[in-house]
Amino acid sequence: MPISKNKIKWIRSLEQKKVRREERVFVAEGPKLIGDLLGYFHCRYIAATADWLTAHPTLQADEIDTATIDEIERASLLKAPQHVIAIFDQRTEQTDISVIEHQLCIALDDVQDPGNLGTIIRIADWFGIEHIFCSQGTVDVYSPKVVQATMGALARVHLHYVALPEFIGKLKDEVPVYGTFLDGKNIYDQPLSTTGLIVMGNEGNGITAEVRKLINRTLYIPNYPIGRETSESLNVAVATAITCAEFRRRE
Amino acid sequence: MPISKNKIKWIRSLEQKKVRREERVFVAEGPKLIGDLLGYFHCRYIAATADWLTAHPTLQADEIDTATIDEIERASLLKAPQHVIAIFDQRTEQTDISVIEHQLCIALDDVQDPGNLGTIIRIADWFGIEHIFCSQGTVDVYSPKVVQATMGALARVHLHYVALPEFIGKLKDEVPVYGTFLDGKNIYDQPLSTTGLIVMGNEGNGITAEVRKLINRTLYIPNYPIGRETSESLNVAVATAITCAEFRRRE
Repeated sequence: MPISKNKIKWIRSLEQKKVRREERVFVAEGPKLIGDLLGYFHCRYIAATADWLTAHPTLQADEIDTATIDEIERASLLKAPQHVIAIFDQRTEQTDISVIEHQLCIALDDVQDPGNLGTIIRIADWFGIEHIFCSQGTVDVYSPKVVQATMGALARVHLHYVALPEFIGKLKDEVPVYGTFLDGKNIYDQPLSTTGLIVMGNEGNGITAEVRKLINRTLYIPNYPIGRETSESLNVAVATAITCAEFRRRE
Repeated sequence: MPISKNKIKWIRSLEQKKVRREERVFVAEGPKLIGDLLGYFHCRYIAATADWLTAHPTLQADEIDTATIDEIERASLLKAPQHVIAIFDQRTEQTDISVIEHQLCIALDDVQDPGNLGTIIRIADWFGIEHIFCSQGTVDVYSPKVVQATMGALARVHLHYVALPEFIGKLKDEVPVYGTFLDGKNIYDQPLSTTGLIVMGNEGNGITAEVRKLINRTLYIPNYPIGRETSESLNVAVATAITCAEFRRRE
């Protein structure tokens, strides 16, 4: 079946967070990304070229359409549409705060840029960080731009949207809660633990005052040479990457 | 004077690389960014609100227009225009290959994404890397998206567009030329020098075969735990950040 007008309307409506939330689904595009997500997320619908479908004979999806590239282009949310587009169920995550006592986790305090969130999910995946706790003000992980930017890392990293200050407030006092600040302590001189939470803040405003109060270990990524005039800060995904790399180097 | 139609046309024409190249100018927007660039780049033209101009009485520019926010919005290339828009002269860089013998430098082999290039320039600035050598296929540093993403780091970092394989080929044999590869050597186990070149490749294809031949020290950023199924690679700006941080940590 070619892609019906209703299907195209459905796909396009999923650019809106409100619709995604109500239906608890999301859109993914491209053979590589969809290949990575199949098996991790239940697939509601897939539209693909005949070639792609022939190459995936064991594909599991509630509904499948064979489509031409032109049809996929009409349905696509991307500038450069690819051979396959799919709608997956969002995952229902079990949020268990005690994982932070046993593993290194990330918290995001109002990260706004979809590209940054996607990149941070890839970084978490690379460094074996399985859980990211996001403030309610953090961009929706199921936004198509985030999904595409994760490059499939979404399959292995679990995102939990929580009221961040209340959530962190529930941690036992001895659990390390790290945050990077311009007036923090040089990360290379500090002991780093193998469990706990690394908090990263908003692109413009950093970590909110409420969350900052709950951070018990402040860190700083030194610039070079120290004291030289430089950019005021690193991009949040870049700071996350350098911080996670240093935690994992020590292990 | 309000912004004339011709000026708006001029600003808009500078979205095109061809026009920027011919006129050797570029557009920057926003009080923070423009404040950072003034003094480093000759300012041809500036349009700003009366408030902004009053706050900058010593401003040097060939031509200045006092404009309303509405007028600036009409001229702006941004989704969220700000109080000031300016046209600067491009800098004529003196390319001296011998800096690579005395300083740590970066080479970019066909980096395509403007956001990635802007982020890499901020990273270079943070880590005191003054020179970036770009292949001719690398995105233009004066593209408005790159300029905005540099957040002013453009003032302190010099970009040189060169025929990269020929350029690297001219380096003395003993100059270290590093590149990160999935089959490179664990960066944390390798000696790292305080001079030389760190080569980063294209988002999808990595380093070109021609340039790869000239790399004499391969590196790899280990994932965690080593051997676990993970994302296939890190984003190029993220890999640049982790690599530069590790070089500077050692110093």
